[in-house]
Amino acid sequence: MKKVAVILGSDSDLPTMTDCLKVFEDFGIDYEITFSSAHRSPALTIKNVDKFYKQGVKVIIAAAGLAAHLAGVIAAHFPLPVIGVPLKGGALNGVDSLYSVVQMPPGIPVATVGIDGAKNAGLLALQILATSDKKLERRLIDYKKELSLGVEKKAGKLKKIGWQEYINQQNKK
Amino acid sequence: MKKVAVILGSDSDLPTMTDCLKVFEDFGIDYEITFSSAHRSPALTIKNVDKFYKQGVKVIIAAAGLAAHLAGVIAAHFPLPVIGVPLKGGALNGVDSLYSVVQMPPGIPVATVGIDGAKNAGLLALQILATSDKKLERRLIDYKKELSLGVEKKAGKLKKIGWQEYINQQNKK
Amino acid sequence: MKKVAVILGSDSDLPTMTDCLKVFEDFGIDYEITFSSAHRSPALTIKNVDKFYKQGVKVIIAAAGLAAHLAGVIAAHFPLPVIGVPLKGGALNGVDSLYSVVQMPPGIPVATVGIDGAKNAGLLALQILATSDKKLERRLIDYKKELSLGVEKKAGKLKKIGWQEYINQQNKK
Amino acid sequence: MKKVAVILGSDSDLPTMTDCLKVFEDFGIDYEITFSSAHRSPALTIKNVDKFYKQGVKVIIAAAGLAAHLAGVIAAHFPLPVIGVPLKGGALNGVDSLYSVVQMPPGIPVATVGIDGAKNAGLLALQILATSDKKLERRLIDYKKELSLGVEKKAGKLKKIGWQEYINQQNKK
Amino acid sequence: MKKVAVILGSDSDLPTMTDCLKVFEDFGIDYEITFSSAHRSPALTIKNVDKFYKQGVKVIIAAAGLAAHLAGVIAAHFPLPVIGVPLKGGALNGVDSLYSVVQMPPGIPVATVGIDGAKNAGLLALQILATSDKKLERRLIDYKKELSLGVEKKAGKLKKIGWQEYINQQNKK
Amino acid sequence: MKKVAVILGSDSDLPTMTDCLKVFEDFGIDYEITFSSAHRSPALTIKNVDKFYKQGVKVIIAAAGLAAHLAGVIAAHFPLPVIGVPLKGGALNGVDSLYSVVQMPPGIPVATVGIDGAKNAGLLALQILATSDKKLERRLIDYKKELSLGVEKKAGKLKKIGWQEYINQQNKK
Amino acid sequence: MKKVAVILGSDSDLPTMTDCLKVFEDFGIDYEITFSSAHRSPALTIKNVDKFYKQGVKVIIAAAGLAAHLAGVIAAHFPLPVIGVPLKGGALNGVDSLYSVVQMPPGIPVATVGIDGAKNAGLLALQILATSDKKLERRLIDYKKELSLGVEKKAGKLKKIGWQEYINQQNKK
Amino acid sequence: MKKVAVILGSDSDLPTMTDCLKVFEDFGIDYEITFSSAHRSPALTIKNVDKFYKQGVKVIIAAAGLAAHLAGVIAAHFPLPVIGVPLKGGALNGVDSLYSVVQMPPGIPVATVGIDGAKNAGLLALQILATSDKKLERRLIDYKKELSLGVEKKAGKLKKIGWQEYINQQNKK
Repeated sequence: MKKVAVILGSDSDLPTMTDCLKVFEDFGIDYEITFSSAHRSPALTIKNVDKFYKQGVKVIIAAAGLAAHLAGVIAAHFPLPVIGVPLKGGALNGVDSLYSVVQMPPGIPVATVGIDGAKNAGLLALQILATSDKKLERRLIDYKKELSLGVEKKAGKLKKIGWQEYINQQNKK
Repeated sequence: MKKVAVILGSDSDLPTMTDCLKVFEDFGIDYEITFSSAHRSPALTIKNVDKFYKQGVKVIIAAAGLAAHLAGVIAAHFPLPVIGVPLKGGALNGVDSLYSVVQMPPGIPVATVGIDGAKNAGLLALQILATSDKKLERRLIDYKKELSLGVEKKAGKLKKIGWQEYINQQNKK
Repeated sequence: MKKVAVILGSDSDLPTMTDCLKVFEDFGIDYEITFSSAHRSPALTIKNVDKFYKQGVKVIIAAAGLAAHLAGVIAAHFPLPVIGVPLKGGALNGVDSLYSVVQMPPGIPVATVGIDGAKNAGLLALQILATSDKKLERRLIDYKKELSLGVEKKAGKLKKIGWQEYINQQNKK
Repeated sequence: MKKVAVILGSDSDLPTMTDCLKVFEDFGIDYEITFSSAHRSPALTIKNVDKFYKQGVKVIIAAAGLAAHLAGVIAAHFPLPVIGVPLKGGALNGVDSLYSVVQMPPGIPVATVGIDGAKNAGLLALQILATSDKKLERRLIDYKKELSLGVEKKAGKLKKIGWQEYINQQNKK
Repeated sequence: MKKVAVILGSDSDLPTMTDCLKVFEDFGIDYEITFSSAHRSPALTIKNVDKFYKQGVKVIIAAAGLAAHLAGVIAAHFPLPVIGVPLKGGALNGVDSLYSVVQMPPGIPVATVGIDGAKNAGLLALQILATSDKKLERRLIDYKKELSLGVEKKAGKLKKIGWQEYINQQNKK
Repeated sequence: MKKVAVILGSDSDLPTMTDCLKVFEDFGIDYEITFSSAHRSPALTIKNVDKFYKQGVKVIIAAAGLAAHLAGVIAAHFPLPVIGVPLKGGALNGVDSLYSVVQMPPGIPVATVGIDGAKNAGLLALQILATSDKKLERRLIDYKKELSLGVEKKAGKLKKIGWQEYINQQNKK
Repeated sequence: MKKVAVILGSDSDLPTMTDCLKVFEDFGIDYEITFSSAHRSPALTIKNVDKFYKQGVKVIIAAAGLAAHLAGVIAAHFPLPVIGVPLKGGALNGVDSLYSVVQMPPGIPVATVGIDGAKNAGLLALQILATSDKKLERRLIDYKKELSLGVEKKAGKLKKIGWQEYINQQNKK
Repeated sequence: MKKVAVILGSDSDLPTMTDCLKVFEDFGIDYEITFSSAHRSPALTIKNVDKFYKQGVKVIIAAAGLAAHLAGVIAAHFPLPVIGVPLKGGALNGVDSLYSVVQMPPGIPVATVGIDGAKNAGLLALQILATSDKKLERRLIDYKKELSLGVEKKAGKLKKIGWQEYINQQNKK
């Protein structure tokens, strides 16, 4: 049973959202992904939400740019958490999208992550599922440790080789 | 037959929108007005749009604040012009609402007026109807003249009494 | 008889505005297009507006960047709908233009679309004309369906080939 | 067992956050609430997070204004969902707080609601708990219906008494 | 012969602009003042500009709020300096007005002062006239000295009575 | 010997800056305070900086609003730390001041605190002095502990009386 | 006798400011140009202002980026018009510079042009000189006509060859 | 004994921060540098702060982007000056980072420099150390003179070769 679904407002949003999908792949979480626009395919959007809900989906991630109504429209129909990912794009660089996603009126929340915050959307979905999944919770604790170890390792390398050489090696990549 | 409908996202938006309704009253234009939220009553919103369309409504005015999805959601369902009125309210003073209304993605336009631009929303609706109503067009031309005469009259008064006295009289009001 | 006219503040705005012109071409709508600046050729601008009005133009689209006064100046002279297209350009990325176009004072509305919203300006003009043109209205309803079908088709493809392959094919384009 | 905890960066944030606490009271959800600042009491903050985690808390809501680091600091230590509430206050009206809360770097998400979005923070916490609590899920579905009925009721009243009288009655309140 | 003219977009702008007019009164400079809107009375605006030009006016000050096109429209017709005063007002607090006034396209400058910068508009007009009026130039040099002496005097008082007492005396005013 | 000096761009800035002065009073630090404007009394400003420097002042705090050049002008002449306090005021609410103070070009730093950050300016000055004053350093460590204890005490009270009563008591104040 | 001087805060600003210098070359106006920073060479800046003033300079143009204090510092010392050119550069794209230049406190105006508004700075300087130079005034009137003719010519070409071909020819350039 | 430490939130911030490190190299100041994230390695961050403090570090420079909590978290634990460097990066170009760093609540200051202000962070650290190091103070006075001489030298070259040739030589570099 797939517990997470991802809806993208446009297929042009797919490259940005791969960091979200990779989180699910890395954690071995099964998920749905589809395209549907709040404006160009409103009926399909609602149909998708209803279908996902009936299938047992617990969290929906919605990503859109500009006047990004997708997460809000989904949240109007879905009783469980909706994660909104505002996307950069157009002249306003995603501020329009951020405000459209996060400033929801009282009654209908959208759990908003940062602009282009694809990876964090995926992790937040896992955290939500982990509230009733001890195994997943333990993996998230491990993930936190890995993040910290990753920083420590880089700090160790910096201490060892010095910043000039560190930058040299960065530039080679 | 009512050719204009006004949908407010919340009854708290009514006081701001009276300047729009007064335009219709002044021009003797029959109109519909109702409350419906894109988020709290999504099905009712779509039902209203369908009903208005079948009744022959030619223009819908949608007013909402914060992450204002109402105009966009209506435009997704209505094939004729939708006028969006971003409303001031909340910490961001209406910039959130403006961006949510005006930055629509290609394919689904919303004719946006300024923040709290209730009066201009009413006038724009009349201008749209006037594209096929010569009598209304003539009245709009007259309205333009009245605006200009109003300015000229005030300028004349200023010339006559001087700015100090003009301010005195303003303060008395 | 041409019912729509497009005025660009500068010939450098032409490439951005082609998406508007293509809408008219696609829908087979005859239109006027010219250059005129509110600041560099103010008399010509007003002359154009008067000429278009006398020729029976019902909607004028005005596109300009920076302190974009063109739509407002036209709206001051034209009694029917003026659509303003704020254009990106300069250090402020079009926010200056957006505010200059949308924040019109009470009495003189400009129907504003998003920054660089050329396509939506064209569609909005058609929607306005469609308020008295049943045939055009039907075509706009069809257009909405096509938009939705386009999304469904892409969603179907995504389901079939998976997102990794979908991105591969995007990259090949 | 309390599944939700609320941490406020300052006791001056309490009045704004009552709408969150009332959601819990209305739904009969037991919760913890305390004050702790990321900057003035950093050790206490971490101690609280550890304590809440051991007690079985599944979601922490963190509310702070200005350079609002509280939610991020909590998220750095808590493996389950952290909801951030940016608060209005100071010269920047909460934009500083919004950016400080929502723009988290990859790896450590904060589920952000709108500025002063106390009520939505509470509802989002319930939605998260409802992913493994069918009874709560059903109540959230009912809540959605009540929201919609509330709008319909007001729309019915507006239809009946007209907007002038509606405003009269609003003013009397 | 009046060398300065002031045009206000609305009579509601008069109170804010008195600091400009008082500069002229203090320096004994004769000036014209009138109301005219770029949008509501466009023909009158141009007529005024032409009239002022023929009368020998050397500088025009234009003050307006919101999408403030007045200074730009005047500058399109007037070959000598136009000073633009963006006015606070509406939801955007004058940022809309500032951008509409200052971001003029190449070819048509507007000498912009700060938002609600009435006094500086008046002083700038005097500075411009002083480029060919040695007497006025000397008075502006004296004015600079008075400003400095005013600061010194206050600093002397602060030194003498201490900040606590200084605030006490401020509060009494 | 006074090691800290405070320069205010205007006497109207004094009330906001009292929180800075109280820090010095609370810590028993002797300080200079005066008014001087970068624009209205430029020579006096430089004279003050030179005088303070010769007297052995180690840190200058500069507070100003709007286009706040005071801190930058002082930093151009003073070789030791200059703390800039951007002040709220005018239509832009202090964003203009913040940008004018913090965005110094390479070569001439200003240590900027938040908008109206009077208290933090005072504390930062103490921290700077504490880099060579062990006694002051110890007092700052104590201050940190007091801050934390203050939070703990309020949290204890909240736990004891509940949030409803806590608010009641807040309202009584 | 040179009546205009241009001061650039950095030699990296020179390329942007050439459009200003070209205006002077085109109109045959003699001018001074130099580099001086308000922060890195404050004494030189004041020395330059004094020197220019004694030489008979009537207008100074100051261009700087980031926290752009140059125009304000010059205006503090110069009794005649100072034109400020905010420059794009750094993370804030010139908004910092714009606010630092335009938001001058009452008493010390800076005539601000748009961000990177080099050409308009040059033209504004000419307009100021033209208030006492009939010949220059006539040339500015001619310049306005040329601007208008330039637009008309391009509009004529568009009418003749159509927009598709117009874009083709633009692309060839 | 190292008196300055630099903590970068990510190794990707190293290239931007080299201008800070070069200041220390140029002035022959010994310094510590490491990576540690407020979010990904919170315990390591605090451990570093404690270690640096015990080693006698007098100033810590913290650089981070996005919701940049690093400087604030360090300031919560360190009793001496913390310099925050907001970094550009992500959709908001560093405004998020600037607000997260500078808008600290009363009690815990962060000495903030401009966005990407690496060089100024280094110089500010030196200025702080110079409050008790006469030799370093003298070098900073010399540095100021060099900055001024550098400007004078460029101005001299401009005078000699003219701006056209100056740009030519710039372009050759």
